Amino acid sequence: MSSRLPVIVQGLGPIGRLIVEAALGDPALKVVGAVEIDPDLAGRPLAEVVEGAPRVAIRESVAQAREDARAGGGILLHCTGSHLDRVAPQIEEALRQKLHVVSTCEELTFPHVRHAEIAADLDRLARSAGRTVVATGVNPGFLMDALPASLASISHGITSVSVRRVQDPSRRRVPFQQKVGMGLSPAEWEARRSAGGFGHVGLEESARLLAASLGWTLGDWRHEMVPCRIDGQEQVAGTLETLEGSTADGRSICLHFEANAGADEEFDEIVVDGRPPLTLRFEGGVFGDDATAAAVLRAARVVPNTRRGLVTVLDLPLR
Amino acid sequence: MSSRLPVIVQGLGPIGRLIVEAALGDPALKVVGAVEIDPDLAGRPLAEVVEGAPRVAIRESVAQAREDARAGGGILLHCTGSHLDRVAPQIEEALRQKLHVVSTCEELTFPHVRHAEIAADLDRLARSAGRTVVATGVNPGFLMDALPASLASISHGITSVSVRRVQDPSRRRVPFQQKVGMGLSPAEWEARRSAGGFGHVGLEESARLLAASLGWTLGDWRHEMVPCRIDGQEQVAGTLETLEGSTADGRSICLHFEANAGADEEFDEIVVDGRPPLTLRFEGGVFGDDATAAAVLRAARVVPNTRRGLVTVLDLPLR
Repeated sequence: MSSRLPVIVQGLGPIGRLIVEAALGDPALKVVGAVEIDPDLAGRPLAEVVEGAPRVAIRESVAQAREDARAGGGILLHCTGSHLDRVAPQIEEALRQKLHVVSTCEELTFPHVRHAEIAADLDRLARSAGRTVVATGVNPGFLMDALPASLASISHGITSVSVRRVQDPSRRRVPFQQKVGMGLSPAEWEARRSAGGFGHVGLEESARLLAASLGWTLGDWRHEMVPCRIDGQEQVAGTLETLEGSTADGRSICLHFEANAGADEEFDEIVVDGRPPLTLRFEGGVFGDDATAAAVLRAARVVPNTRRGLVTVLDLPLR
Repeated sequence: MSSRLPVIVQGLGPIGRLIVEAALGDPALKVVGAVEIDPDLAGRPLAEVVEGAPRVAIRESVAQAREDARAGGGILLHCTGSHLDRVAPQIEEALRQKLHVVSTCEELTFPHVRHAEIAADLDRLARSAGRTVVATGVNPGFLMDALPASLASISHGITSVSVRRVQDPSRRRVPFQQKVGMGLSPAEWEARRSAGGFGHVGLEESARLLAASLGWTLGDWRHEMVPCRIDGQEQVAGTLETLEGSTADGRSICLHFEANAGADEEFDEIVVDGRPPLTLRFEGGVFGDDATAAAVLRAARVVPNTRRGLVTVLDLPLR
């Protein structure tokens, strides 16, 4: 490896820390800074938070971290939130600092519909800075969009693509359990659902990414959310969310995301109805946190070889 | 779809015909010509060979087909052979005709080692013509290289990648059965093997593509070929070929290609030993001919969005 790409990690929650850890073992990358506004972390040495990290202080702003590092042509690994309207100013700051941005922001994986104006602004800013912005992760960013898009490249005349992701939340972090309503009473679950408190951020973005890759225009949307129940148990075991979109001539994309403590097994499955038909399954599923950290590092490695502007995972080359 | 990309198909063997058929149903592509030197086909209307094809005559050269079509910015879908030294002049002719080239030539999927000089010439010619050359297919081109490379993007600290493809040749075309020695006596099989008559063209190319994507330098190669036997049967049931390459620090890529009439089931399996570990399986395998036709069409659709020169499947975007 000739020279390592300098990276700054912004957001030191569980995923951000995993990203720092993983980046320390990546021969193509070099951690040169970290940013976090949490007053318990800001100002402390990064090595106190992640073992083996270099001797840099955690800064409150990207500009400060950039100044410490004095590294040219770096990349911001950005993992501070799911909602684009809240994190867009951070990404803009990074672009003004002439950094590429690889973000885990779910809504940024395909922002051209829900946040068309922010997307256009980021694209303009990135192009004029000569930098690339991309959001990735395992879901959205891979299992329900980039991977089925890749599979679809070996089947033609495709009429439907469906993806099923089944996870057992009792084996995941508590915030994930809460996000899917595990342990709530049915009435509490329903109250939270009505208030819009559930829902996997990124399901619609995945469907739109996959449709873009297939050249499909999805119109007829169907979105369902139901509580998962276990026989004889009062508490809800999780949530099953289904998003389906169809083209005018009846081709469809169906995404099925089940977080269910009563699931018999964890798995991810993709079925492509085309010629040839394809059924692909990850036995035991894919552990999301590690996979998201890996996806961010991979995007960082190839960002220099990607076109400038706001791009999607569909634009990332494989090296 | 605004305008269809004009394509000319060269080579009307079984795969070439499948490609024409599939292209006729692709809203992004338009078949404008066909080329075949077989005197039984040259000069005949393409529609006599593939039902529903447009009224064009099968020509003996790309230049003639190009002249008939008068279409600018077209793509040659090239499927005349596996060995690059034999087909390179055809690809050069297409580039002189200002066509992009998508080829099924196995040795062209990663020609930079075995055919470094031809690769450099094609790259130079393609760049100066402002065109792109890429070879693809299902294997090599997807199952043992691009797909594991894609999977490797959600796992870090990878120590090994292994791919197993198990097919039952009794369910395939006769040329495939012959290629894997099905029905030979053990002595005939051994004689053919010694003479270099077996071997899946493209296994080494797949390993090198995958290594390029992982940033690995493979050194310590191990290549094995053994006959598959069925208890109580004298005739050989097929061939098991294994190619393994390792890095100096012990990371490895292992490709296992088994064409065995005695196989219990057909499948394709990819195992990535990293964080997270990944095990992915295509139940029932992937039917290669249709998948190769689809891979060629997909490459044709995205070639205009790919960089110029001789590229690999790792460089193709997903739209």
